[in-house]
Amino acid sequence: MCGIVAYIGDKPAFPILINGLKRLEYRGYDSAGVALMEEGNLQIYKKQGKVKQLENLTNGHSFDSTVGIGHTRWATHGEPNDRNAHPHYSSNHRLAIIHNGIIENYGALKTELEEEGYSFESDTDTEVFITFIEDIQKTLGVSLEEAVRVALTKVVGAYAIVIMSQDDPDKLIAARKGSPLVIGLGKGEYYVASDATPIIEFTNEVVYLNDEEIAVITRAGFEIVNTKDIPQKPYIHTLDLKLEAIEKGGYEHFMLKEIFEQPRSIADCMRGRINATEGRLMLGGIRNYSGALTNAQRIVIIACGTSWHAGLVAEYLFEDICRIPIEVEYASEFRYRNPVIREGDIVIAISQSGETADTLAAIELAKSKGAIVFGVVNTVGSSISRATHEGAYLHAGPEIGVASTKAFTAQLTVLTMIALSVAQQKGTISDVKFRELLVELESIPKKVAKALESDGKIKEISALFKDVHNFLYLGRGYNFPVALEGALKLKEISYIHAEGYPAAEMKHGPIALIDENMPVVFIATRDSSYDKIVSNIQEVKSRKGKVIAIVTEGDVLIPKMADFTIEVPATHEALMPLVSVIPLQLLSYHIAVMRGSNVDQPRNLAKSVTVE
Amino acid sequence: MCGIVAYIGDKPAFPILINGLKRLEYRGYDSAGVALMEEGNLQIYKKQGKVKQLENLTNGHSFDSTVGIGHTRWATHGEPNDRNAHPHYSSNHRLAIIHNGIIENYGALKTELEEEGYSFESDTDTEVFITFIEDIQKTLGVSLEEAVRVALTKVVGAYAIVIMSQDDPDKLIAARKGSPLVIGLGKGEYYVASDATPIIEFTNEVVYLNDEEIAVITRAGFEIVNTKDIPQKPYIHTLDLKLEAIEKGGYEHFMLKEIFEQPRSIADCMRGRINATEGRLMLGGIRNYSGALTNAQRIVIIACGTSWHAGLVAEYLFEDICRIPIEVEYASEFRYRNPVIREGDIVIAISQSGETADTLAAIELAKSKGAIVFGVVNTVGSSISRATHEGAYLHAGPEIGVASTKAFTAQLTVLTMIALSVAQQKGTISDVKFRELLVELESIPKKVAKALESDGKIKEISALFKDVHNFLYLGRGYNFPVALEGALKLKEISYIHAEGYPAAEMKHGPIALIDENMPVVFIATRDSSYDKIVSNIQEVKSRKGKVIAIVTEGDVLIPKMADFTIEVPATHEALMPLVSVIPLQLLSYHIAVMRGSNVDQPRNLAKSVTVE
Repeated sequence: MCGIVAYIGDKPAFPILINGLKRLEYRGYDSAGVALMEEGNLQIYKKQGKVKQLENLTNGHSFDSTVGIGHTRWATHGEPNDRNAHPHYSSNHRLAIIHNGIIENYGALKTELEEEGYSFESDTDTEVFITFIEDIQKTLGVSLEEAVRVALTKVVGAYAIVIMSQDDPDKLIAARKGSPLVIGLGKGEYYVASDATPIIEFTNEVVYLNDEEIAVITRAGFEIVNTKDIPQKPYIHTLDLKLEAIEKGGYEHFMLKEIFEQPRSIADCMRGRINATEGRLMLGGIRNYSGALTNAQRIVIIACGTSWHAGLVAEYLFEDICRIPIEVEYASEFRYRNPVIREGDIVIAISQSGETADTLAAIELAKSKGAIVFGVVNTVGSSISRATHEGAYLHAGPEIGVASTKAFTAQLTVLTMIALSVAQQKGTISDVKFRELLVELESIPKKVAKALESDGKIKEISALFKDVHNFLYLGRGYNFPVALEGALKLKEISYIHAEGYPAAEMKHGPIALIDENMPVVFIATRDSSYDKIVSNIQEVKSRKGKVIAIVTEGDVLIPKMADFTIEVPATHEALMPLVSVIPLQLLSYHIAVMRGSNVDQPRNLAKSVTVE
Repeated sequence: MCGIVAYIGDKPAFPILINGLKRLEYRGYDSAGVALMEEGNLQIYKKQGKVKQLENLTNGHSFDSTVGIGHTRWATHGEPNDRNAHPHYSSNHRLAIIHNGIIENYGALKTELEEEGYSFESDTDTEVFITFIEDIQKTLGVSLEEAVRVALTKVVGAYAIVIMSQDDPDKLIAARKGSPLVIGLGKGEYYVASDATPIIEFTNEVVYLNDEEIAVITRAGFEIVNTKDIPQKPYIHTLDLKLEAIEKGGYEHFMLKEIFEQPRSIADCMRGRINATEGRLMLGGIRNYSGALTNAQRIVIIACGTSWHAGLVAEYLFEDICRIPIEVEYASEFRYRNPVIREGDIVIAISQSGETADTLAAIELAKSKGAIVFGVVNTVGSSISRATHEGAYLHAGPEIGVASTKAFTAQLTVLTMIALSVAQQKGTISDVKFRELLVELESIPKKVAKALESDGKIKEISALFKDVHNFLYLGRGYNFPVALEGALKLKEISYIHAEGYPAAEMKHGPIALIDENMPVVFIATRDSSYDKIVSNIQEVKSRKGKVIAIVTEGDVLIPKMADFTIEVPATHEALMPLVSVIPLQLLSYHIAVMRGSNVDQPRNLAKSVTVE
């Protein structure tokens, strides 16, 4: 994933681009660059590293250009370095491009162009792409916009691009397919970006470009055609996004802010959807397909990473209360094998960003086989929200920290509401149990707030474990996916090798790892498998492992066995993951901070994975 | 697999047999027995359990017999009990036999003999075999050795046998085909055994019987003919082996022996079940439930540990060729939640030992909900084989090494045969593809043997990685479960924290772990996701990870990127796990040995987990 921003108007472009790139750094941050007009020349400045390094590079320069494009990169082709950073010139240095996505047939194009005598400065697909456009313009003798259009009919892959030209400096050309692009409409000025964050302080009127649309933007206005050259009518959205929502709000890191935001984000997620007092639950998207859902012979959940863990929790709840068989699949695996999907099967796709490439492709595959696809997505208007038949948004607000926290709990909340809704309509849940779960769900934000109070204690424990090399996380039943999620958090931001397992599987191999150097986190809250997990704790202690146990408030047994215990409030076991994951998020956060990791932008990772 | 031992000479035979059987117990230990001459009568003593139980049974007896045969059993036909233990009498109790192997056409022979009026005391193929010999001797009026020879020309299968006769008590007749047999040459005395371990303390001169050879042994000497009655000249070997080494067949550890046994154990698993030339596939247990299987709306596979990985491979194959939705569950999780199982759903339970407690409990739960349960089990007569409605045995022989190797490949083989059989009956596989897969499956033992030839190279690579703390294993599609299995092997015996992942999931978290200290094993054989995994290798290399790649013979692309490559022969992608897991078994073995681990009995682990 990369971040794209562009500006054309009457203000100096450079500060707008830099500021926008910083907002977009969550999308990638291995190199950054800008292209501007300087004394009639198309000039590119770019640098490996964060946007800060780009700013340092250009320190002292004063830029007048009122048009420009900027890019922050997460490498897909060619390693992260200055040369491979965007923007890229075309061969004659009269065109510049920024690009988010992958041109899959760039190898063939490159060979053709090399045979014609072109050479390349970088290893990127993007430089091939813009040189291809230059070549078309020359060969066909057409306008730049026509050359872009023709080029787009020839390339295979995904892209969001913005192009500027030395010969036509009062114009930007933007296009997308598969990667997001939004145009912000000012007065005599226009913004283009990967999402609205670079735009929001200037205007709340935006147009989301659709796949295979090309926008030609001047200071006087813009026009959209599709790649078949048919004019398209833009639909203007009015954004209701507050700037403060995308800033840190006093926390040291976005991740910590987002962890502590969860009482609110979970409540936001339920707002207007449930009323426990009246025993009412209403999810718009679900209502429209309630017949399909209650009659489903099978539901397949597809997701990646943290969202996949949310899917595993949902599997247990759906099977328990809806009596529908559930299969949870890695999107990447699902799409490349030959899965059984029958006409009318239900697929639920989960993605925070709504842009996850593998999930998107899996959705298309499921649709092609006749499945009805629901989206559980955070980002409104994202590709997945548009590709699915129906869905329910998380309403958790933008998640900037690369390690997902509040999106996970919001996903659990939405999936719980869907399961309850289906169970009620199917009659597979008693009224009493339905109401009990609804009341319990409504109380979760308060319980999460309570769980967050252990922050100080967790910080102390973190200090003792910050230098270990390995961690195991074990849970059973509803807490098994929580073990996977806790381990993933630690991996992502502390770079400690942590692994989650269903506790009973430990005896089939992983127990060999246990010695006095191995910390083991048990999610051991009071539920139907409590006695069993107590035995598992004893097995680890008898092999001298160090045990950190997440327990229910008031537990007196486990504190006698475990080295450290962290309490969380009691709740129904099906809802426990919403609460028991909180200490694990904090544990990973504090350990990572103490190890000096860049918590919000951990190495090698990007916020959403929009490439395969 | 069974152990056999026999003696003829001037010493009391009984202590020699008991001592020999104890040495051979690694070949099987579900029941044991001896046949001796007592006051002119051919007397059999046999008992379910270990050789120790047989000793207890015969406590107090003093045996003078200077001729005798003994057997320790690993059940293949008929459950382990006193009745099915060897030796077996022929119908008139004047012949006794010990047998290691499987007589494939015993069913037809039994029917014929029953029509002639014979009846049988056991459920074994072996009793049919010896009664067949008795019948030939009677019908043709020939000598015992001639009757044996004629019988051997009529039976299909594998055998190592020793026969003694009440009417000819100074003679042993031994023969082999496919199962090992060695004759030890003393002074006026001879030993016969499955391997040299029962012999080595008495003599180091031995003759290895060849396939389709028959030895007639008296105290005065022995003669060898082949089944065509042509005399054979024996070649006398002088052994230079330590007792300990030959118990493990010359290998340093049982695990290594079992890894190298796989060409044979996979072939054993298919023996009598497939005939690729004729396009035939026949699994007894499956035939009885073919209607239930072909009509199944859903199959749930339950297992633990390595068996669970075999289940994941089966999921892909079943969904691909049988078009039945498959759900693979951890037995421990399945049994404690409230899973959806409907009347007539099919459950397949996989377990090497057939005693895994969680799997057994999950089977009972599934049965209580009306499921039809199949077992895929190695140990004949084990609890799981008895608790299931039907099943298919692995016939892989006893697995002694705690880290499962040959059982995994045998599980894959059996599951593949089940899937092919169901697909054929359902008509969801074309005849051409069915035959293609059958031919390919039949060639797997040879390809596994080829894969084993990389042992030396793998040992060299192991030396370079023996001191690392962590490993990642990545694969896609059919090779994803192989990645999990490779990681588990390393964990179990080297205590290195190794983790398997579907390669595409790496970008959703684990990639943060990658730096110059992190070795990553890619299972990257040529298949439908080859291009994708090549991209994943590039992503790891661009972050400086060390890449060990398992590739298809002749791959030229990946060796340019990876730090180390290990080649395996090409095969159909659905069968590739049978081959691609081999180098991973060897890698974990060599690393563990170099780290000084107790490979056959790693810390904290037990061979089969008979507690929760």
